[in-house]
Amino acid sequence: MKNNAINPERSRSQVRILGLDVALRKTGYGIIDSNGQTFKVIDCGLISTPQKAPLSECLRRLHSGVGEVVDEYAPQMTGIESGFFYKNAKTAMLLGSARGAVIGPIAETGIPIYEYSPRRIKQAVCGYGNADKKQISRLVGQMLSLNTEEMSDDVTDALGIAICHAHTYFTNQGAFLPEPV
Amino acid sequence: MKNNAINPERSRSQVRILGLDVALRKTGYGIIDSNGQTFKVIDCGLISTPQKAPLSECLRRLHSGVGEVVDEYAPQMTGIESGFFYKNAKTAMLLGSARGAVIGPIAETGIPIYEYSPRRIKQAVCGYGNADKKQISRLVGQMLSLNTEEMSDDVTDALGIAICHAHTYFTNQGAFLPEPV
Repeated sequence: MKNNAINPERSRSQVRILGLDVALRKTGYGIIDSNGQTFKVIDCGLISTPQKAPLSECLRRLHSGVGEVVDEYAPQMTGIESGFFYKNAKTAMLLGSARGAVIGPIAETGIPIYEYSPRRIKQAVCGYGNADKKQISRLVGQMLSLNTEEMSDDVTDALGIAICHAHTYFTNQGAFLPEPV
Repeated sequence: MKNNAINPERSRSQVRILGLDVALRKTGYGIIDSNGQTFKVIDCGLISTPQKAPLSECLRRLHSGVGEVVDEYAPQMTGIESGFFYKNAKTAMLLGSARGAVIGPIAETGIPIYEYSPRRIKQAVCGYGNADKKQISRLVGQMLSLNTEEMSDDVTDALGIAICHAHTYFTNQGAFLPEPV
């Protein structure tokens, strides 16, 4: 994988963001370009593993799938949803393993990773923190001029996370940007 | 990383095993060769990250560190400790992320990964399931003709996991071998 963290050819006023909605068997990804005013989708999709496949196959697909997306689109920053809201330790362990399989190869390239709470993401996309998945999908479609009706929520959520990061990055010169994970 | 799953040059009666004691900031690894009767240590060590380094740096080091070990020593099988005994969801999430960062690149090479409970590992090394870390360290040292006195428990535990897998693999022609994860 190439080191994509710094690309002097790209304009300083526009950034390429990878948004990731990470889960063990269905991880959505979305690549957008934004200058804070405009949002353009470059690609989006799903890294999925069949229900019966073992854990190692899920983690292998996440590891190589995210690696391919980063290699192909050279994002400068990544946004992911924070995951510390699970009560069940076994579920938390499995989601954690999916996050580790994804963050490891991204961190290897030096691309910074920013974490946002589900509430923060909904606020950034829909204007309020209690929006449901359908509302996120519709607003993401409007902002990106994209027909999201047939798209998986995992993919529209990933695009929403990328939009949330773009908002945070450009608003007040990034004053509210969290520390990278 | 090369695909090390099958190496026709290596004798069928001897296997090379990578044992991993996975944690976010201190992951021990141990490489042993065994035919079920003899156990020979090839290398062992620690992949560590300073306490103040961010999560992404821990996962980056685990991801690349395990990749280097696998590239250099071409193990045919991996043994790890099972991790589903944490009650705290946040701790479980963090340990899960360490496991994901390690399992992803190993799974990519096709090397199978076998999981063992702490009790099973202690039984295999010490003969009883309630052994403490000092006892594991001493027995691992005896079995591998290795001075383990100054070694970190994370490293001797990793060697113990490799020994446990060798035992299981060769005993009763692998009748008690668990499914790979």
